[in-house]
Amino acid sequence: MKNANAERIDALIKGLAAFGYQEGKGTTRLAYSELDRQAQNWLLEQIKDLNLELREDAVGNLFLRRKGLDSSLAPVASGSHLDTVRQAGAFDGICGVVGALEALYLLQDEKLKRDIEVIVFRSEESSRFNCATVGSKLLAGKITPAKVDACCGSNDITFSEALKQWGCNPAEADKAKLEKGCYKCFAELHIEQGKVLEQKGLQIGVVQNIAAPSRFKLHLQGTSDHSGATPMGMRKDALVAAAKVVLAVEAAATAEKENGTVGTVGVLEIEAGSINVIPGSVNMKVDIRGVKEESIKRTLAAFEAALKQIREESGVEITCETLQLDKPVALSQELAEQLIEICEEKQCSYLPMNSGAGHDAMHMVELCPTVMLFIPCKGGISHNPAEYAKLEDICRGAEVLAEFLEKQASE
Amino acid sequence: MKNANAERIDALIKGLAAFGYQEGKGTTRLAYSELDRQAQNWLLEQIKDLNLELREDAVGNLFLRRKGLDSSLAPVASGSHLDTVRQAGAFDGICGVVGALEALYLLQDEKLKRDIEVIVFRSEESSRFNCATVGSKLLAGKITPAKVDACCGSNDITFSEALKQWGCNPAEADKAKLEKGCYKCFAELHIEQGKVLEQKGLQIGVVQNIAAPSRFKLHLQGTSDHSGATPMGMRKDALVAAAKVVLAVEAAATAEKENGTVGTVGVLEIEAGSINVIPGSVNMKVDIRGVKEESIKRTLAAFEAALKQIREESGVEITCETLQLDKPVALSQELAEQLIEICEEKQCSYLPMNSGAGHDAMHMVELCPTVMLFIPCKGGISHNPAEYAKLEDICRGAEVLAEFLEKQASE
Repeated sequence: MKNANAERIDALIKGLAAFGYQEGKGTTRLAYSELDRQAQNWLLEQIKDLNLELREDAVGNLFLRRKGLDSSLAPVASGSHLDTVRQAGAFDGICGVVGALEALYLLQDEKLKRDIEVIVFRSEESSRFNCATVGSKLLAGKITPAKVDACCGSNDITFSEALKQWGCNPAEADKAKLEKGCYKCFAELHIEQGKVLEQKGLQIGVVQNIAAPSRFKLHLQGTSDHSGATPMGMRKDALVAAAKVVLAVEAAATAEKENGTVGTVGVLEIEAGSINVIPGSVNMKVDIRGVKEESIKRTLAAFEAALKQIREESGVEITCETLQLDKPVALSQELAEQLIEICEEKQCSYLPMNSGAGHDAMHMVELCPTVMLFIPCKGGISHNPAEYAKLEDICRGAEVLAEFLEKQASE
Repeated sequence: MKNANAERIDALIKGLAAFGYQEGKGTTRLAYSELDRQAQNWLLEQIKDLNLELREDAVGNLFLRRKGLDSSLAPVASGSHLDTVRQAGAFDGICGVVGALEALYLLQDEKLKRDIEVIVFRSEESSRFNCATVGSKLLAGKITPAKVDACCGSNDITFSEALKQWGCNPAEADKAKLEKGCYKCFAELHIEQGKVLEQKGLQIGVVQNIAAPSRFKLHLQGTSDHSGATPMGMRKDALVAAAKVVLAVEAAATAEKENGTVGTVGVLEIEAGSINVIPGSVNMKVDIRGVKEESIKRTLAAFEAALKQIREESGVEITCETLQLDKPVALSQELAEQLIEICEEKQCSYLPMNSGAGHDAMHMVELCPTVMLFIPCKGGISHNPAEYAKLEDICRGAEVLAEFLEKQASE
C-alpha cells in the first residue's frame, strides 16, 4: 500500500480550519451552522476525485460510500465529525474524517469485496445544544429531537429549529435510525486529547473501552462569619469542608489508579467570597469516570462515604445532586487485536488504552463491532486553539486505518 | 447614676439608620458623602440640649466637648464612627457614638473635674477609599491624604477630592495630628461583630488586645488538562493543591486556638473552571490574625512550611504575595481592670476578650491609654442589613461607659 499523502491531508485540515477561524481565537464552527454547511461543501468539492456516493440522512449525518464488488454485503464504516467547540483547534474530529478519506485514497486502486462508508456525524460537540454526540445517538435510536431540545436551555435556537434550517424535518428524525448489523464494523480515528501517548513516546493508541462520567453538583452550606471575630472552634467554614471534598475525590480516584478511574473537581465557587469573611456557601461540580464498572462503583462509594463523614465532622450541610451516571462502553476486543496486528506489521509502536473522553464510537457499538485508534496530540491539549497533532502522526493513523479497512472489506 | 434612656437611644439609632436606607438593602452611608454630613447634622440637632462645644478638625473628625471644672487638664475621650459599609446594619460604629452621647446624658447632673470629649471619627470603614480607620490614623499621624489616595484605585473620587468636598484642605491635613497625652484616656463602645458573647450568654466584653491581620494573595499554577483523558498520576491539579493550602491554614490556626489566632481562606477562584477540565490555575486570599505575636509567628511559619511542602509534592507552582503584615495592638490593662470592676459593681456579666476586627481604638493607643468594651450582637452578624444589637445591651454598654467616664473625669 502507498504511503499517506501528507500534503493532501495538510491541505484538507488547514482548509477546513479556515471555516470559522478568527485570529487568536482558533476555529468556532458550531454544528448545523452555516459554517458547518460551507466547510462540508468545501470538503466534498476537494474529494470529488474519490467518486463517492453521497447520502445525507434525516438528521443531517453525511454518508460517503465507496462501492465494492458486492454492495449487498454490510459495508465497513469509518468516520468522525466536523463540528467544533467554541475557540477550537483544527484536529478534534477533523482528523477522523480526513484520515478516513485519506484511507480511501490509499485504497483507490484496490478491488475490495465490500463497500466502505465514511460517516460525518453531525453535532458531536455539546457546545451548541448542551448534548454531545447527537448525530450518532440519533443513528443508534438513543435520543429524539425533543430530548435534545430539552437540553438547549437559553440557546440561540432549539435543536429542532436547527434541524429545519439544515433542511431536515424533526418529525421524521426517526428515519435516521439504523438497524443493528447495518455495518460489518466501524473504526474511528481520533486525537487522544490526553498526553499518555506523547509522554510514553508511542505512535498509536488502540482503544479498548470508553469511560463514562458520573457527574455531581454539590452545595455546601456553612455559616458566613467575620474572619477576625470568630474563633477557630466556632466556625462552619464551607470552604474548609469543600477542600476536604476535593481531596476525598482525589484520594478515591487515586486508590483506583491502576484501573484507570479518574476523579476531578472542575468547578468550585464561593458565594460572595471576601478576604475578611468565612465562606458560608460553596458550589462545586465533581466528575468521576472510568472504564471498569467495579472500580467506578468503589470510587463512588468512597466519595459518598467521604461526603457523609465531612458532613458529620464539620456540621456543614452538603447536598449532592446527580447530574449524570453513565456506563462505560467496551469496544470490540477482536477488532482491537486486529489493529494491534497491523501496528506490529507496520512496525508502529502502540498502546492498548482507554478513552477518557466520549466519542461517536460509543453509540456505533449499538449497531456493529466498533474500535477506535488514537494518535498523539501535543501536550494532551484539546478544545483549545493550541490543539496540535503532527502531520506524520495523522499520516500514520490514516495508513493503519487504511490497512484495517482493506482487511475488513476483503472478508 | 440614672439608667440609660432606651427610647432616646432607640430614636437616635433609628434616626441615623434612615440616612442612606434602602428597603431590603440596609443602610449605605459612605464616609464624607452628603448622607454622612446630613446624618451628622441631624444628630447634632437632636443632642442640642447637651450643650456641647463643637469642633471639626482639618480632616473632618468631629469633637463634642462637655466642659468640666478644670479645662486645663487632659480630657477623657470616647467615641466611634457614623460611616457605614455598603448595605450595612444600624449598629456598627453608631452604638459607640450614641452610647457615648447617652453617657453624657447620664452624667448631665454631675460636676466632674475634667472635660469629656466625644469623637466622631471620619471614615472608619474601608468601603469608600480601600483604607480603614482613616480619621483615627490621621489623628495619630500614621498616614497622609496622599497615601490614602494611592489606595483608592478606580474609586468615584480620590480621598483628597472627598476632603475638599467636605470643606477641608488636603494640604493642611497634618493640622489634625494630635500629640501623645492630649487625652487622659480613650474608651470605645462597639458591637462585638462576633458571636462569642452571645454564645456564652455574657453581657460585656472587655477588650484586651486588637488582632492584626497578615494577608496573602496566592496564585497556584498547575496544568489545565482534559479531566477524562488524564490519568491520576499525570496531573498537576491546581485545585487539589489549593485544597491542601485551605486545610493547612485551618490546621495552623487551629493549633494556636488557645492563643486566639485565626486563619481563613475567604477567596478562592478557579480560572475558567469547567466540569470536564482539570483546574490549571487558582487564585486565593488568606487572612491570618491574632493578638499574640509569638502565636502569629508560629502560625505564619506553619503556613509557609505547608506552602513549601505542597509546592514540592504537587509540582504546582505557588506564588505568595504579602498584602499586609500588621502587628496586634495591646490595649490598656489598667483601664480594662477598671471596666471589670465597674461590671462587677453593676453586676453585669463580662468576658475579658480580644477583638478580631480592627477599630479606631487601635490608633488612639498612640495618643493615650485606650480601652474598648463590646456588647453582644445577634449571631455575630455585622456589615450586613441583618446586623442587630438588643436595646437593653446598648443601654447596659452606655451605663458601663458612663461609670467609666465619670471615674476617669473625676481623677
